Amino acid sequence: MTRYAAMAADIAQSIHAGVLQPGDKLPSVRSCCAARGVSPSTVFQAYYLLEARGLIRARERSGYYVASGAHHPPPEPEIARLPPPASLTVDVSERVFSILQASFQPGTVGLGSAFPAPQHFPWSKLAQSLAACARQAQPHDLLDDLSTGHSGLRRHIARRYLADGMPLHMDDMVITNGALEALNLCLSAVTRPGGAVVVESPCFYGALQALERLGLQAIEVPTHPRDGIDLQALEAAITTHRPQAIWLMSNFHNPLGSLMPAPHKQALCDMAARLQIPVIEDDVYGELYFSARRPLPIKAYDRAGWVLHCSSFSKCLAPGWRIGWVTAGRFTQAVARQKLTTSISTNAPAQAALAHYLEGVGYDKHLRQLRHILLTQRDAMAQAIAQYFPPGTRATRPEGGYLMWVELPEGCDALALHQQALTAGISLAPGPVFSASQRFERCIRLNFGLQWDARTIPALQQLGQWCAEMQQHGIRR
Amino acid sequence: MTRYAAMAADIAQSIHAGVLQPGDKLPSVRSCCAARGVSPSTVFQAYYLLEARGLIRARERSGYYVASGAHHPPPEPEIARLPPPASLTVDVSERVFSILQASFQPGTVGLGSAFPAPQHFPWSKLAQSLAACARQAQPHDLLDDLSTGHSGLRRHIARRYLADGMPLHMDDMVITNGALEALNLCLSAVTRPGGAVVVESPCFYGALQALERLGLQAIEVPTHPRDGIDLQALEAAITTHRPQAIWLMSNFHNPLGSLMPAPHKQALCDMAARLQIPVIEDDVYGELYFSARRPLPIKAYDRAGWVLHCSSFSKCLAPGWRIGWVTAGRFTQAVARQKLTTSISTNAPAQAALAHYLEGVGYDKHLRQLRHILLTQRDAMAQAIAQYFPPGTRATRPEGGYLMWVELPEGCDALALHQQALTAGISLAPGPVFSASQRFERCIRLNFGLQWDARTIPALQQLGQWCAEMQQHGIRR
Repeated sequence: MTRYAAMAADIAQSIHAGVLQPGDKLPSVRSCCAARGVSPSTVFQAYYLLEARGLIRARERSGYYVASGAHHPPPEPEIARLPPPASLTVDVSERVFSILQASFQPGTVGLGSAFPAPQHFPWSKLAQSLAACARQAQPHDLLDDLSTGHSGLRRHIARRYLADGMPLHMDDMVITNGALEALNLCLSAVTRPGGAVVVESPCFYGALQALERLGLQAIEVPTHPRDGIDLQALEAAITTHRPQAIWLMSNFHNPLGSLMPAPHKQALCDMAARLQIPVIEDDVYGELYFSARRPLPIKAYDRAGWVLHCSSFSKCLAPGWRIGWVTAGRFTQAVARQKLTTSISTNAPAQAALAHYLEGVGYDKHLRQLRHILLTQRDAMAQAIAQYFPPGTRATRPEGGYLMWVELPEGCDALALHQQALTAGISLAPGPVFSASQRFERCIRLNFGLQWDARTIPALQQLGQWCAEMQQHGIRR
Repeated sequence: MTRYAAMAADIAQSIHAGVLQPGDKLPSVRSCCAARGVSPSTVFQAYYLLEARGLIRARERSGYYVASGAHHPPPEPEIARLPPPASLTVDVSERVFSILQASFQPGTVGLGSAFPAPQHFPWSKLAQSLAACARQAQPHDLLDDLSTGHSGLRRHIARRYLADGMPLHMDDMVITNGALEALNLCLSAVTRPGGAVVVESPCFYGALQALERLGLQAIEVPTHPRDGIDLQALEAAITTHRPQAIWLMSNFHNPLGSLMPAPHKQALCDMAARLQIPVIEDDVYGELYFSARRPLPIKAYDRAGWVLHCSSFSKCLAPGWRIGWVTAGRFTQAVARQKLTTSISTNAPAQAALAHYLEGVGYDKHLRQLRHILLTQRDAMAQAIAQYFPPGTRATRPEGGYLMWVELPEGCDALALHQQALTAGISLAPGPVFSASQRFERCIRLNFGLQWDARTIPALQQLGQWCAEMQQHGIRR
C-alpha cells in the first residue's frame, strides 16, 4: 500500500470508529507532515482520496472537515439463522429470468446489474491489441491450442498467480467462454444427475440455474455476510447429505461481498481432502481487492487437488469478450474433455489479443484505477444508504468487488421494491433470486460499480423513501 | 451454374458412365464451339476444370485425353444392414478421445481432421474486419445483445437464408460458441436425463459424446451413404422407443457425406409434427455444396416449429472463431435461456467483425473458391482410392462438404490401419468412433479438404498398400 493510501485508511478508521466526528476539523497539512514525517503531497493525496470517498469535505480557506454522516456507515447484517439445511430440488430458473429480464432495459439506473459499468474498462487499448494480433495472425494459429487455449494467454495468467504467491502450471489450465462456462464444465465433470451440491445461502443465482439444468439437488449452507460460508454448518451438511460437490465464492462474494479469511480457506481445503469432496471455486472478483494485497483464493491452499478454481476477465478487464479459465486439480483432464465436447475451444482472436495486452504493464495500472473507483463508490453508496434508508437498514462493507448486500428493516419487501423501482427506471437484484428456498425477502443486492452520475444518489434516495413508505403504509403489490 | 461448369459436368458424367474411356481423345476446342454454340474460352475453362479434377490430361500439341483410371471412381457403399435399433447406454467418449487425440500432432497428413485446411480461409480479410470493428467499438456494444447475439450478425445470417429461399426471423436466432454449443444447448433444452435420442448410424461422434454427458440413451438408425437416414426405420424406432429427440445432419453428413433428398426432408418434417418430436439439425456443411444451388436444410420444410436448426462459420469461413447459431422454432426461448445460464453470451468482437465482413461481397466469392477446391480434391481423392486401394473398396461421392466415407474390403480393419498410419504421420478417422455400438470396423472417414500437397497422394497410396497387406497377411495389432 502507498503511504497516502495507508494514511487515508488510518483516518477513515478513526472516522468510522467515531474518534473523529462529523464537523471535526482535520489536522493541517503542515502539522500532519511534521507528525507523520511525510511530504505535503502525501497528505494532500490522502485528503483527496478521503474527499472522493465522501468522508471529508474541504471548506475554502479553512481546511478539511469530517463530512456530515461520515461516521455512520450502516450496520452490517447478521448471518441469517436458517434451519439445518435440507436437500432441495431446484426450480428457480424461470423465476430468476422473469425477475431479472426487466432489468436489462437501456437507460435504467443499473443498481441491479451484475457487471461494472463498461466505461470503467480500457477498451481502446484492448482494441489496439485485437487489431495488432489480427494483422499478425497465421492460419495455423487459429486451429492450434484446440480445447485448452492459447498458450501465451495461459502463461500470462499463470504468471499473475505466481506473482501473488500461488504457483499454478499453465498445462493444468483450460481457457473457457467466461467463468460461467468454466463453472458449468466443472459441475458436469464432478456430478451425476440426481446428486446434490452444497451452495451458499445466499448464493449466485447462476449456480442454482446450473444445478436445475443438470437435475441436481441444492443444499443451502448459511453464509456470513463478512466471513463467507459457515464451516461448521458446511461439515454437518456434507456428513448428513453426502453431496457430490461444493460450489462457492471465497473472495467478494456475489451477492454478499463477503471475504473468507485465510484460515477458513485453509480449513476448507483440509475438509475437502478429508471428506474427498470437490470444491468448485468461483473467483471472478479476486483481483478487485481494496486492501494492499490480493486475497488468495481457496485454490492457493489446495495440496490434494480437490479444488476446481474458475475465474475470468469479464469483471476486471473485458466484459463481453467471454474469456475465462479453470484450473481443476485432479479433475483437469475431465474438465478439458467436457470443454472439448461442449464447445471445442474458445474464440482464438480474443485469446491472442488478451495475451498481447497482458504483455504490457497496462493491466495492473487499469486494475489500480478500477479498484480506486470501486472503493470510492462503495463508500459513497454506504453513505447514501445510511442517510436515505430507514433506520434498521443494514449493509455489508465489502473489501473488494462491487456488490453490496442490503438488509431492509421489518415491513419492507425486496420483490415489491424491485417492481416499484422498475417503473421508475431503477434496477436492483431482489434477495429471493439468490436462494433455492426463496429466502431473503427483505434483502437486495446493489451494484456500486455502475457509472456513478447525477442520477445515482437520487435513485438511492428514492429507494430509501419507498422503503419508509412500505413500513408506514404496508406493502403494495 | 456457369456455362463452363455445366459443360464440364456433362463431360464428367460421360466419363463416369464409361461413354468416354481412358485414353479417348476429347473433341477439339474448335469443334466443341461449333457443336455447343459456346466461345473458345468457355471450352478452355471447362477443360481446365476437368484437368484439375484429374479426369482429363493435356498432351502437348495433341489435345485433351481422358485420364487413365478416370472412369473408375470406387463403387459406393451400401447401407449397413443393422438389427432393429435398440436403446443403448452411450460409453464412447474415452475411446473417441484416446483414438483421436493422437491425430492432432503437428506435421501429420491430416486425412483424419474434421476441419478443412486453415489455408483455405480468407484470414487477412477477416483480420481487417476485426481491426476495423475494434477501432470503432463503443463500450456499450460489449454488453448489448447479451445472450442472443449481435443484431447485425443475426440480420446478415437471416438474409442469407432468405436469399436461399428460407425465411427466418433474426429474433428467433441465438448466436453460440460454434455449432457444437448450439447442438448441446438444443439437446439440453428438449431432453431429460434417462431419456433416449435417435442418432444416425454412423453418426458424428460429438453427438454420442453429448448423449453420454447428459445421461441419455442412443437409438442408432441405419443411414444411407447417399440419401441419409432411413425414414422407415426412423419411424419404427420412434414408435418403439419413444425418444425425446432426433439429432441428425441432412446436408453432407459427417462421416458419410450423404445428402437427404428434398422429399425426404419434407417427409421428416411431417413425421416430426405428427409424432411431436423435436429434430435437432446440424447443418454446418450446408454452404459447401458442389451443385448449382444450396440444398435447403430440413428447417426450410418445418411449418410446425419442431426443427432446431444449428449451423456455424467454423467449416466455411472462420475456424477457431467459434461463432455458430441456432434457430429453434418452438424451443427458441428454452434454448436462449440455456445459453444465458451456460455461457451468457458469445465473444462480442468476433461477432461484430463477422457482421462487418458479411457487409461486403467477399463471402460468396470465398465460398465459390472453397467449393471449387473441395470438388477438385474430392475427385482427386476418389481417383487415388480407385487406383491405390485393393479391389472391393467402396467410397461415397459427396455432393458437398469435404468428408468421404470409405468401406475397406473384407480382411481389413480400420482401427489397425489407424494405428499403422499414425506411426507414419498420417491421420484418419476410424469407423468405430462413429457408433455407440462400435460398428463400422471396416470403414474410415477421410478429409479431402486438407491442404493438398506432395505428401497427399503418397499417403493415400500407402494406406491402400497397408490394406492390401492386411488382406494378405492378416491384421496385426
